[in-house]
Amino acid sequence: MATKPSIPKGTRDFAPVEMARRNYIFDTIKSVFRLYGFQQIETPAMENLSTLMGKYGDEGDKLLFKILNSGDYLLHANPTALENRDSIKLMHDISEKGLRYDLTVPFARFVVMNKENLVLPFKRFQIQPVWRADRPQKGRYREFYQCDVDVVGSESLLNEVELIQIVDEVYRRLNINVVIKLNNRKILSGIAEVIGAADKIVDITVAIDKLDKIGLDNVNAELAEKGVDAQAIEKLQPIISLKGTNKEKLATIKEVLASSEIGVKGVEECSTILNLAEQLGVATEIEIDLTLARGLNYYTGAIFEVKAKDVEIGSITGGGRYDNLTGVFGVSGLSGVGISFGADRIYDVLNQLNLYPEELLQSTQLVFTTFGENEFAYALQCLKKVRAAGIPAEIYPECVKIKKQMAYANGKGTPYVAIIGETEVAEQKVMLKDMVSGEQTLVSIDELIAKIKK
Amino acid sequence: MATKPSIPKGTRDFAPVEMARRNYIFDTIKSVFRLYGFQQIETPAMENLSTLMGKYGDEGDKLLFKILNSGDYLLHANPTALENRDSIKLMHDISEKGLRYDLTVPFARFVVMNKENLVLPFKRFQIQPVWRADRPQKGRYREFYQCDVDVVGSESLLNEVELIQIVDEVYRRLNINVVIKLNNRKILSGIAEVIGAADKIVDITVAIDKLDKIGLDNVNAELAEKGVDAQAIEKLQPIISLKGTNKEKLATIKEVLASSEIGVKGVEECSTILNLAEQLGVATEIEIDLTLARGLNYYTGAIFEVKAKDVEIGSITGGGRYDNLTGVFGVSGLSGVGISFGADRIYDVLNQLNLYPEELLQSTQLVFTTFGENEFAYALQCLKKVRAAGIPAEIYPECVKIKKQMAYANGKGTPYVAIIGETEVAEQKVMLKDMVSGEQTLVSIDELIAKIKK
Repeated sequence: MATKPSIPKGTRDFAPVEMARRNYIFDTIKSVFRLYGFQQIETPAMENLSTLMGKYGDEGDKLLFKILNSGDYLLHANPTALENRDSIKLMHDISEKGLRYDLTVPFARFVVMNKENLVLPFKRFQIQPVWRADRPQKGRYREFYQCDVDVVGSESLLNEVELIQIVDEVYRRLNINVVIKLNNRKILSGIAEVIGAADKIVDITVAIDKLDKIGLDNVNAELAEKGVDAQAIEKLQPIISLKGTNKEKLATIKEVLASSEIGVKGVEECSTILNLAEQLGVATEIEIDLTLARGLNYYTGAIFEVKAKDVEIGSITGGGRYDNLTGVFGVSGLSGVGISFGADRIYDVLNQLNLYPEELLQSTQLVFTTFGENEFAYALQCLKKVRAAGIPAEIYPECVKIKKQMAYANGKGTPYVAIIGETEVAEQKVMLKDMVSGEQTLVSIDELIAKIKK
Repeated sequence: MATKPSIPKGTRDFAPVEMARRNYIFDTIKSVFRLYGFQQIETPAMENLSTLMGKYGDEGDKLLFKILNSGDYLLHANPTALENRDSIKLMHDISEKGLRYDLTVPFARFVVMNKENLVLPFKRFQIQPVWRADRPQKGRYREFYQCDVDVVGSESLLNEVELIQIVDEVYRRLNINVVIKLNNRKILSGIAEVIGAADKIVDITVAIDKLDKIGLDNVNAELAEKGVDAQAIEKLQPIISLKGTNKEKLATIKEVLASSEIGVKGVEECSTILNLAEQLGVATEIEIDLTLARGLNYYTGAIFEVKAKDVEIGSITGGGRYDNLTGVFGVSGLSGVGISFGADRIYDVLNQLNLYPEELLQSTQLVFTTFGENEFAYALQCLKKVRAAGIPAEIYPECVKIKKQMAYANGKGTPYVAIIGETEVAEQKVMLKDMVSGEQTLVSIDELIAKIKK
């Protein structure tokens, strides 16, 4: 007997309702990306492991899904690895490919392979699933979509501002209230420099990042514990407990970092970005936030994070400036900046706030129901005209009881049902039922089309 | 030194030009699916191997991409399998998941798992990549997209006709001349029955399928070789060399199969489908073709195949009626019918015939170019207005030489460039250059928007 089938843990099926909602998110994001001149690319689900390994740290290497080589994969496997059941060693012999872990590394690989054909600056977006062998938990999946948008080959800060405009426009269209948090890696470097602890930059940012959770005293204690001396901690105080408007914050930071060239440059970059965003009418609140330290080993300039204001959830968009995207593949000197929209978290936010447009699920506008063969044949001709007018419509494909046909229409959530009986055929009309108001009107096909199109 | 990266053989990157073309195909197909009331679903890239194995024959089992279990996958591996380097046996211990091989088995699995929530008939479409460890060759990839559309839970032949209407509409919109080939598994069963060789049905259809390639005499010889007796071969002659209109063909077949109940039923189904298609104004040529024997072990009624008339290429769409989609997962009695559009072959056909709409690549409508900082600031405000009007537009993000900016606009294939110098700023206007005609006009932003929107 066949056993009840299941799907791998951490993966999901998307039924029509969920697909309609997801498409709404993807379509909104895509149309804004296109409005700003970004072009879509796609890369294969499978990449060579030589492309993927070593790019995400040791933990990432473990979380990559590896694909077993085809054919007799054990033929040339290392005998010692087999004998010792050495899973890691054997892996190199039996697997050459892995599933995409993010969209950044494949993009870097794409840029290097297609460098000759790209007009710089290259503005690309990419919306595809990625796979991670993470322990599945609420809101964390083993297969999920990323929506990345990046500009490479331009150091202009206008690119940062356009990404902010994109965030502003996407969330305006989705009706989600957000705040954009902005930091700059150069400011963090400046801090480390000024307190004379350049090697402590990671410790410092990790500690600052905990401010909200553990409070100032504990942050200071942690800094001391990590070997930051008392004088440096003292110097850091205005920065750790930074307050006021963005302008006030930047002024404070500039004062503390006055002796650091890179620190001052970071402050200036933030100012330029904020001023330009203001001039261009960005409505979303932007907040300088030094506790933002994501992707620290990776970003070299601006760092962004977007939080939803009305829902308790992690960041729903994030990114930053990186100066050497493709260096790992042998092409250096390409600066870029990009952000990634987290479709699954945006989906959760829209669900929690119930922000989907009502008509999303009304894929079919009209279902024809019929009382017999003669009516069925007439209805088919009507249906043809309705579809030719561009209206998604259906007919229940068999002459079953009208109740069953109506149940079908209800299940599909159609706003209109056309009921065809003897009278309608005789008069060459249609009884149109509005499924919300319950109102029924006898109309011609042309009237029906006009009514639904309106 | 980093080595030049590559992608796995049989896989492809899609650059912006290819993506625009592929999206054109997918969007066209999707909009027709929706017009006919089909709803989209998606299933995970990874399925449990227990779901996939045994569904595609022994060859299919080999061509499945298997995913190595995470963690210490060798810990509980079978010692004998390890010792004997038994790749097949070991596979069961070290891999539980595989990549989707088609969209049909995942759809069947989806229907079984979601049966309670589905309103029947369930009309779904699904457009996702599938993966096969086939030997890559021209036109055959290891990762490719399928576009499947199926109705389950209805035996009405109207479903077959609606699939024909969908084919008709999709290829009309894509401007590809096609012929729809139609067969019926019941006719094939009838043939086997009438000649008293029910066990020879596969041999017979394989032989008939070769008619075009090897000619009538060789087909007859092959049938004899396979053990079909001379009397049966004699009886088959009118069917093997079937000629005339569809009506004539069906009349001939009906005569030969008069004694077979199932055979006659097959002929009647074909007639019904053809008549209904004609009544509903299907413009595409439909041709009864008994050499059509695809998916023979699977289909139980109508069998479809669509061929492009102006390009030498295999079938670009195909499908049929199946009576037991979900039986393998323990749910029987669900009849369905579906077809699959081969996006990659359609892409090849459109490329060969150069049938893409010209404006496809003009994702960005307008690029602003500027002569200096002051002009740049003015251009940013203009750009904001143009985007607010819904026109995809860009600005070259740095004040570099105008030649470089124009090269960028050319590379993007934009139809218009806005050139901003001192005069334009002073007059609060824009010099709009039509990149096709070369014509330049000094216009206000409102005039520019009106012109591009037209």
